[in-house]
Amino acid sequence: MNFLSDTTAPAHPDLLAAMGAANDGFAPSYGADPVSARVRDRLKDLFETDLEVLFTVSGTASNALALSVLAEPDSMILCHDEAHIQRDERGAPEFFTGGAKLLPLHGAHAKIAPDALTQALAEWPDDFVHATPPQVLSISQLNESGGAYTRDELDALIGPAKEAGLRIHMDGARFSNALAALGCTPAEMSWKRGVDALCLGATKNGALAAEAVILFPTVMDRFGKLQARQKRAGHMLPKMRYVAAQFDAWLKDGLWLDLARAANASGRRLADGLATLPGCELAHPCDGNEVFIRLSPEVAERLQALGAGFYAWPDGSARFVASWCTTDAEIDAVLKAAKG
Amino acid sequence: MNFLSDTTAPAHPDLLAAMGAANDGFAPSYGADPVSARVRDRLKDLFETDLEVLFTVSGTASNALALSVLAEPDSMILCHDEAHIQRDERGAPEFFTGGAKLLPLHGAHAKIAPDALTQALAEWPDDFVHATPPQVLSISQLNESGGAYTRDELDALIGPAKEAGLRIHMDGARFSNALAALGCTPAEMSWKRGVDALCLGATKNGALAAEAVILFPTVMDRFGKLQARQKRAGHMLPKMRYVAAQFDAWLKDGLWLDLARAANASGRRLADGLATLPGCELAHPCDGNEVFIRLSPEVAERLQALGAGFYAWPDGSARFVASWCTTDAEIDAVLKAAKG
Amino acid sequence: MNFLSDTTAPAHPDLLAAMGAANDGFAPSYGADPVSARVRDRLKDLFETDLEVLFTVSGTASNALALSVLAEPDSMILCHDEAHIQRDERGAPEFFTGGAKLLPLHGAHAKIAPDALTQALAEWPDDFVHATPPQVLSISQLNESGGAYTRDELDALIGPAKEAGLRIHMDGARFSNALAALGCTPAEMSWKRGVDALCLGATKNGALAAEAVILFPTVMDRFGKLQARQKRAGHMLPKMRYVAAQFDAWLKDGLWLDLARAANASGRRLADGLATLPGCELAHPCDGNEVFIRLSPEVAERLQALGAGFYAWPDGSARFVASWCTTDAEIDAVLKAAKG
Amino acid sequence: MNFLSDTTAPAHPDLLAAMGAANDGFAPSYGADPVSARVRDRLKDLFETDLEVLFTVSGTASNALALSVLAEPDSMILCHDEAHIQRDERGAPEFFTGGAKLLPLHGAHAKIAPDALTQALAEWPDDFVHATPPQVLSISQLNESGGAYTRDELDALIGPAKEAGLRIHMDGARFSNALAALGCTPAEMSWKRGVDALCLGATKNGALAAEAVILFPTVMDRFGKLQARQKRAGHMLPKMRYVAAQFDAWLKDGLWLDLARAANASGRRLADGLATLPGCELAHPCDGNEVFIRLSPEVAERLQALGAGFYAWPDGSARFVASWCTTDAEIDAVLKAAKG
Repeated sequence: MNFLSDTTAPAHPDLLAAMGAANDGFAPSYGADPVSARVRDRLKDLFETDLEVLFTVSGTASNALALSVLAEPDSMILCHDEAHIQRDERGAPEFFTGGAKLLPLHGAHAKIAPDALTQALAEWPDDFVHATPPQVLSISQLNESGGAYTRDELDALIGPAKEAGLRIHMDGARFSNALAALGCTPAEMSWKRGVDALCLGATKNGALAAEAVILFPTVMDRFGKLQARQKRAGHMLPKMRYVAAQFDAWLKDGLWLDLARAANASGRRLADGLATLPGCELAHPCDGNEVFIRLSPEVAERLQALGAGFYAWPDGSARFVASWCTTDAEIDAVLKAAKG
Repeated sequence: MNFLSDTTAPAHPDLLAAMGAANDGFAPSYGADPVSARVRDRLKDLFETDLEVLFTVSGTASNALALSVLAEPDSMILCHDEAHIQRDERGAPEFFTGGAKLLPLHGAHAKIAPDALTQALAEWPDDFVHATPPQVLSISQLNESGGAYTRDELDALIGPAKEAGLRIHMDGARFSNALAALGCTPAEMSWKRGVDALCLGATKNGALAAEAVILFPTVMDRFGKLQARQKRAGHMLPKMRYVAAQFDAWLKDGLWLDLARAANASGRRLADGLATLPGCELAHPCDGNEVFIRLSPEVAERLQALGAGFYAWPDGSARFVASWCTTDAEIDAVLKAAKG
Repeated sequence: MNFLSDTTAPAHPDLLAAMGAANDGFAPSYGADPVSARVRDRLKDLFETDLEVLFTVSGTASNALALSVLAEPDSMILCHDEAHIQRDERGAPEFFTGGAKLLPLHGAHAKIAPDALTQALAEWPDDFVHATPPQVLSISQLNESGGAYTRDELDALIGPAKEAGLRIHMDGARFSNALAALGCTPAEMSWKRGVDALCLGATKNGALAAEAVILFPTVMDRFGKLQARQKRAGHMLPKMRYVAAQFDAWLKDGLWLDLARAANASGRRLADGLATLPGCELAHPCDGNEVFIRLSPEVAERLQALGAGFYAWPDGSARFVASWCTTDAEIDAVLKAAKG
Repeated sequence: MNFLSDTTAPAHPDLLAAMGAANDGFAPSYGADPVSARVRDRLKDLFETDLEVLFTVSGTASNALALSVLAEPDSMILCHDEAHIQRDERGAPEFFTGGAKLLPLHGAHAKIAPDALTQALAEWPDDFVHATPPQVLSISQLNESGGAYTRDELDALIGPAKEAGLRIHMDGARFSNALAALGCTPAEMSWKRGVDALCLGATKNGALAAEAVILFPTVMDRFGKLQARQKRAGHMLPKMRYVAAQFDAWLKDGLWLDLARAANASGRRLADGLATLPGCELAHPCDGNEVFIRLSPEVAERLQALGAGFYAWPDGSARFVASWCTTDAEIDAVLKAAKG
């Protein structure tokens, strides 16, 4: 039992099997292999559009690489104050962009408030040589409080940002969980909303280490530059076929969404069960597989005694993350222990 | 049949099996898992010293990360003109160090000439504010012409460099092949020669994607900084256990050296066989698994017709790389075809 | 008449005369000249301490150079949301530090609120590899709303910052104005408060182009690194004597404070005169030579008709900046026009 | 008497006088002043073309800023092995470009050998993601051995470079001396030869601190980016009028060329006088105001005893630099002492 993070979970066996299958004889290096080509086609089908894609092995790498082709060194990236790119990547965006500035915006439940965005756009002119011009809006979907922006909420942010000439980056480390939550198509949650570059994560949802940077047609002309940055950052793996193989299995027959739905359902059961206990209440709406809940001291103590594996979050809540392999029995055990 | 590069070869099945074995339940993220700890212990045993180690998934990442904690942004790294860090990493060392300068040195067969080193040290003062001071000597072992520096050759370079206050980086993408070639211990080819940081590569010799940056005691105090740089560069994988597992199997019971010896032996057979043909001669001594040979037009044509898979090298030779899984039958076929 | 900025004002004739006097025959380059040495001695006397100093020609350069030896590339600099380093330097701190992150803090009248500082220190751990550790607190004195931190206010910020291990940078583009406002010694407003590095500006107060980066004893060991960064940034002027000559005249016989007092007095007269008009009120306390005032539409119109030269500030106020050469007659003219 | 460098010389009085004249009342900041506009017009006239220009206070800043808009972070700059940008700028080009690589080329007398250039272009492909593509050829005029490339020599380098798609940067720290040497027009030595960006230096030839980055029409569209980089590097001086004023006087009525001719004539007299002495011979042709000469031990000793002020150069010669204010009497004294 472990709710610390979906990165402590193992990989789904289908992905390991696909790596084994890809381990057959010689294959071209650096992404020119047939498995990589197949995944590219799968993604075009799933996203119903032309696109360019490259693979990495961490979400931090994907975000930083994507931002490095969207934002110039002397420009600014707008994001939520709690965004992973702001809080949890040790300055990777600043490093990869050559010094771009991140402007943290406020908003409840880790969702950027539209007012905060429009105020920032008003305060930071894009034609004043002394000021750092905003060039990118970065949105996390799921976000850092486990919430999914609805399509309307995305429109309310992306609309004004696009009008101001910004490009849109989506940190989709838990894109599949958000997709399962919203029940819409991948296209409807990305380029149809105005997203230019999507970082699509599989690692937190069943992969060993598989992340993708997807450039939609609006920025596909930057793909050559993106590949150069990938190489220069040491993220162009010689034997890329093994990363591609993970995506191949993950996307096949809807496995990615099955796993996301399972994780979300576990999150929901856990949230519902804990939120009914006296002195406990959800800190944020639970849209996906993450539960942020304020626990009574008694409940917190019981769950620690059980070894349930969760984090004390900076906002005072406890964070539980369900994964694709969380079982009902594990949740039952947690809820039983919580009740005392 | 494919001699284009050892990165086109598949992975050894033991490594895939170890990844499968590691895929058992939950494990701490970011390198805090038990497999990573076990590999650290294995390396201490094999290198007969205390050390710090972290894992990456590409040789470029390893080299650039190591150099970033050895060289300051306004300093200089000395390396051979043909070094991978100079020629084949798209400026990764410049990127990770924040702008350090690489000074290319000459020398036959991709070995830095001791004279070239001492001249560079004389020309570039370390106390003149206008000039960029040398801080690192980087040596590739095997080097880019497939040669292994002997221990004496290493001493002839590292001695003066250390005297001038430089730190020593070894690019060991094919360290195991060099070790098999020299027949000495890992310690004798690294820290006992004065190497401060070693990039130890497994990918070219049987792994899927597994590289290690090893800091020996002289620079172990920089490990915290190295980890921060690893995170900031997106190279701290959430599920690090799968990289560690590859190393675990690779180092177990001497597999790494068995594979290196096999690849070297294939290289030797190929070199010996081709070099006897009329109009063909080795461009560089063949110490490991790489063969650089000038082919007569007839032989070149026959091998292309066979689809042998080799590169036309910038120096006019043809490069063949044998891998851990190259078979005698494949080499026989090449030699037979070459003879016409 | 021009209240747009103290950078639109001419230089004091004494400084031009000193440059002429320095233009006598040959002199060593790059700051090794006797005038530079004399200024160093003057500063040691004035600040009552040992120190290291180098000269630049812009406040942005001084701030960025100072920060580059105080903050590592993967660290964080805390400053007010309206700080010049955050708002008006086009990302120079990010550029010079190699990608450090600026965390904007809130507080009324451009003064960092102590609560905002302690909250930031609590939220950003310095030992978590994923998060960017705070290493520097930057304080502007005068600040961007024309206010001077009192000594107690400085203590309330610097105390907790030092306790958390941060180093203290003071942006003193208008240090002399703040000094005149507080009526204390240079030492009492800098190193005796815990300031490690001071950017002392003369350009806004009578110089042509003369700024100094002063390292106090706590960080004097970084002077060699600072010089290297100065050279690398193109800020080590070949004929440095002409910048030093400006400082020499500026600091001589208290000229710098005389000029600051004159500018402050002009600011005070302007503030007092405008604030009594109906519908007009000061947006921020006027401690030095800058006046931020909300004008009634009638007054604003009259002053524009006069061509008084002021800026509409983002917060809705009008900014007037008095300089060392602002005359009483100019202020009388403004006040008379404002009254209609 | 001082032949150490033209940067140890004082400024021409006309330039100081022009600064005094510019010190009249208020003027717009950051280069929007009328003097700056007048210089821009002067340069358009002199260079017989449209152009963009900005001012800096050091040659290192000019070179690095110009290169930062010509070369991308993951590209390569070709220059002579002894070029100032390679040897004497503490890595400023790497810093400003965000990590571009400098490839040092060989050639006698600090002139890039055309063969070395074409070989480099052949060795470094521009479409191979692993290799760093050449984007800029940088030429020093005068070069670091005091030589002036003839127009034919410039064509022999710039032709192949342009054909390979490179942009051309000219380090003209001593452009005026080269112009006086060749006796051609500014246009014939710059954009008519294919130069895209020229760093025009006045500091070594009579200014206090005045350098210009000139973008010719081929790259004028990068001027906005150049200004942003200038600001971000702290090189956009608040009171830019004082730098512009220096250029204004320097370019007026051909003063710049008069000063260059005087310095060159002094260099020539010194070279001719010393070269006739037994055991002395010029190390490089003397085209401008710099003399590189191998001295007999006796002559060297006599000149040191005189305190003539010269440098022992790394190539074993002695470097004497004449300036605009070197007098015939000073040279007579040197020659007399040299003869013993």
